[in-house]
Amino acid sequence: MKKKIELYDTTLRDGAQGEGISFSVEDKIRISEKLDEIGVHYIEGGWPGSNPKDDEFFSAAPSLKRAKLVAFGSTRRKGVKAANDPVLNSLLKAGTSVITIFGKSWDLHVKKALGVSLQENLDIITDSIDYLKGRVKEVIFDAEHFFDGYKANPSYAVQVIKAASQVGADTIVLCDTNGGSLPDEVSKIIQIVRKRFDRPLGIHCHNDGELAVANSLAAVSSGVVQIHGTINGIGERCGNANLISIIPNLKLKCGISCVTTEQLKNLREISHFVDELTNRNPWSQQPFVGDSAFAHKGGIHVSAVMKHSATYEHIDPSVVGNRQRVLISEQAGQSNVLQKTAAKGLKLGSGDPMAKKIVEQIKALEGQGYHFEAAEGSFELLVQKALHQKRDFFRLIGFRVIDEKKSQGEKSRSEATIHIEVDGQKEHTAAEGEGPVNAMDNALRKALERFYPQLREVRLIDYKVRVLPAGKGTASLVRVLIESTDGTEKWGTVGVSENIIEASWLALVDSLEYKLMRN
Amino acid sequence: MKKKIELYDTTLRDGAQGEGISFSVEDKIRISEKLDEIGVHYIEGGWPGSNPKDDEFFSAAPSLKRAKLVAFGSTRRKGVKAANDPVLNSLLKAGTSVITIFGKSWDLHVKKALGVSLQENLDIITDSIDYLKGRVKEVIFDAEHFFDGYKANPSYAVQVIKAASQVGADTIVLCDTNGGSLPDEVSKIIQIVRKRFDRPLGIHCHNDGELAVANSLAAVSSGVVQIHGTINGIGERCGNANLISIIPNLKLKCGISCVTTEQLKNLREISHFVDELTNRNPWSQQPFVGDSAFAHKGGIHVSAVMKHSATYEHIDPSVVGNRQRVLISEQAGQSNVLQKTAAKGLKLGSGDPMAKKIVEQIKALEGQGYHFEAAEGSFELLVQKALHQKRDFFRLIGFRVIDEKKSQGEKSRSEATIHIEVDGQKEHTAAEGEGPVNAMDNALRKALERFYPQLREVRLIDYKVRVLPAGKGTASLVRVLIESTDGTEKWGTVGVSENIIEASWLALVDSLEYKLMRN
Repeated sequence: MKKKIELYDTTLRDGAQGEGISFSVEDKIRISEKLDEIGVHYIEGGWPGSNPKDDEFFSAAPSLKRAKLVAFGSTRRKGVKAANDPVLNSLLKAGTSVITIFGKSWDLHVKKALGVSLQENLDIITDSIDYLKGRVKEVIFDAEHFFDGYKANPSYAVQVIKAASQVGADTIVLCDTNGGSLPDEVSKIIQIVRKRFDRPLGIHCHNDGELAVANSLAAVSSGVVQIHGTINGIGERCGNANLISIIPNLKLKCGISCVTTEQLKNLREISHFVDELTNRNPWSQQPFVGDSAFAHKGGIHVSAVMKHSATYEHIDPSVVGNRQRVLISEQAGQSNVLQKTAAKGLKLGSGDPMAKKIVEQIKALEGQGYHFEAAEGSFELLVQKALHQKRDFFRLIGFRVIDEKKSQGEKSRSEATIHIEVDGQKEHTAAEGEGPVNAMDNALRKALERFYPQLREVRLIDYKVRVLPAGKGTASLVRVLIESTDGTEKWGTVGVSENIIEASWLALVDSLEYKLMRN
Repeated sequence: MKKKIELYDTTLRDGAQGEGISFSVEDKIRISEKLDEIGVHYIEGGWPGSNPKDDEFFSAAPSLKRAKLVAFGSTRRKGVKAANDPVLNSLLKAGTSVITIFGKSWDLHVKKALGVSLQENLDIITDSIDYLKGRVKEVIFDAEHFFDGYKANPSYAVQVIKAASQVGADTIVLCDTNGGSLPDEVSKIIQIVRKRFDRPLGIHCHNDGELAVANSLAAVSSGVVQIHGTINGIGERCGNANLISIIPNLKLKCGISCVTTEQLKNLREISHFVDELTNRNPWSQQPFVGDSAFAHKGGIHVSAVMKHSATYEHIDPSVVGNRQRVLISEQAGQSNVLQKTAAKGLKLGSGDPMAKKIVEQIKALEGQGYHFEAAEGSFELLVQKALHQKRDFFRLIGFRVIDEKKSQGEKSRSEATIHIEVDGQKEHTAAEGEGPVNAMDNALRKALERFYPQLREVRLIDYKVRVLPAGKGTASLVRVLIESTDGTEKWGTVGVSENIIEASWLALVDSLEYKLMRN
């Protein structure tokens, strides 16, 4: 297939409907600039008039190099003239060159949700498109619930899109709004529609059957030229079709050049960027871009990919900006540890009894709730300790953290005191912080910086706490993961204890010791 | 389509290869019993001989009512007679009536990973099946990398499965091991294979292209009768085909009765059960069973589903054990708040200015980092406070939490003191705990139980901490979510602050006040 496909992103509109998703105006601007860079053709920015944030976004008007910014809204209200309709006029006020409006194509919705006759719905759609068409360059019509509508009343569903097309809608988008259609149905219905209809078609899928990517690809095979989706598939209920999977499938599997090779390399970056701004934990298993997407755990897989990576990788991870990983876990054989230590530049020969000892230590610690997959800093310290190559940077004499709240209205405050010894010299100091861990971190650095000034560069960038389910008759364990940076490198460290303070202490000490060890 | 499809679960074997997944023997037994209940036909329990845990699982032999337990392993090693091969003999020792072995069908793997000639690979496969076939009832052959193999060398790939079939393999499973195939390819290849081959076929897909569910359904449309997958799609890299989506798609969309209506109602339960045992956060957007799968946020969607739920729901959520939810968020209109308060039995009329006030409070708190979607307890307290229906159960005079570590080798200990007043009576007390939050919880209960003995029933069942990204020039915020139960009801509460102790305090107080308010 050598055809042109347009990518239409609705992360900022339909994506924002997802549970737990909330964008600031600044987020929206930053995301639209990233979408522009990665080569998306249309960016649906929001619904002007529906909330102040979306209005502010359109007036701020991000500077886009290639992509067209789109304002989204509904058809006119019933009983109102298009020219007087507040929704349509807010759309025009947004000042974009493209407007998308959605209308009903399922008779159930016309009657139950909208409460008008089938003819009146057709009038609402044609009036609205006609009014907008004279005032902006391009009008896209979303036929909401098209597939459910077609299954319920095929002639009416087709009548709706024909009417929209006759008054000049530039593209007609067939929506699987409830996300329940199967790829075979999508193909069949589009093929029938295309025989009776020659306007460019788009597809807008939801993932309620875990089939949104497949339904979008089936639509492309059946002749659709515009795909609607969101970054990471965020959106209402189970989300929208995931552009992060659709783009590489089109480009690498179907040979449809929707973005450039350079743009494709930023796929992982934009996926994580949106996760960051939506404050979602990245989906580790996410196809193409997830941390686990090219991570090998089973011993057989690891030894095969070491010989030839295509044995267990469907694409070269670097083409989408991802990388191969070998996991350290209780399933790990020595080959995993050897590959890992070699990647870190540590000397450890094949068949070395030390490798076996390290694997056993890892298995024992994982049994206690440790997890080294996201804590490569702690893993490296463990290896260095086993090889007796790690020096003791300091000795703890003791610490104390006090959190106090003096009345209902007053905020809690935290203070830590710490007492350590470095090469026979003692340091006893104290610091405040936002919470006990921050106070402890501040006090420990204050004590150590006298001896190791390079610790001033280290900054905690993430702090995660996981409560592990209690075993039989034991207290719950807390696992703390800390991510640190010194401006050049990033590293993760881990601590596990029944006490969050102890677990944080362990991860914190590993973080600083890792920095000292690397210097 | 009215045909019989067999469900083959490999959660305990291929699923365990997923990053971060680790099952105990006890976990495996509990999961296999659940799989049996839900109507899975085959349960692949592990690879006997590969690690002590799997051996222990097969000797424990869970009591299954309908499902067949399967031992999984590889074909014999090169240069070893089948009868002397340790892998094959470990499989037999597991004592199951069904054995699945995998062999190579991609010439690249035969040469690069296995390092034998194409003919030798055929001998390895036929010897192994032949040896097992005389000793167990049923032998299933997994043709690893079948689709990649077929694309590279179609005649050899077909030769492999023909050879396996000639020596009596009962089912031949076509594996998309690297997970990169497209549904169209899967259909086309299976249709060609079926013309040259009449043995029952199975399908085993991976999700590297976000197409594993679609590929499995495409295989069924093309005549495959056995589907391999895992609960929640856990597995190596991006995971395996997700049975939790495949089962309802087959039953509700394709009319293939693979499980009973009663069994289907347990779909959400088994999904969450496996998440619990694998200590994974449930995937909120997960099709069919996720918390968000039938959650409505946009105002238009909410008002439509209130009239008629099929308007934005592809199936009735109760048939898979799920339920409809209406979300409270800044996108929320008053209809969301009214629906929510009505569900809680609170009086709040439509058009009530109080509803508007509550929506504004929610929006303001969400701007500060609050999140009420998982904190219905805190939401209800907020509503009651707004309606002036909540009494003050106690007044805080002050608290102090001390965490101390007295030397490197000694564990930290935490102690909290608390001073409160209830109806003019003061209580000043102290308690220890596993960490500062636990100490604070213990001290607060100890102080309150004298006045409110019903708090003895309350237990914290989950404690989650999320660090929110810092805004411009401000410190990071910490959001604490607490889940509590009194044995009958469960409720979530939330607290946000720069200080984890303060945030935990807020969530803790809400948790106890919610219980007192309900009584």
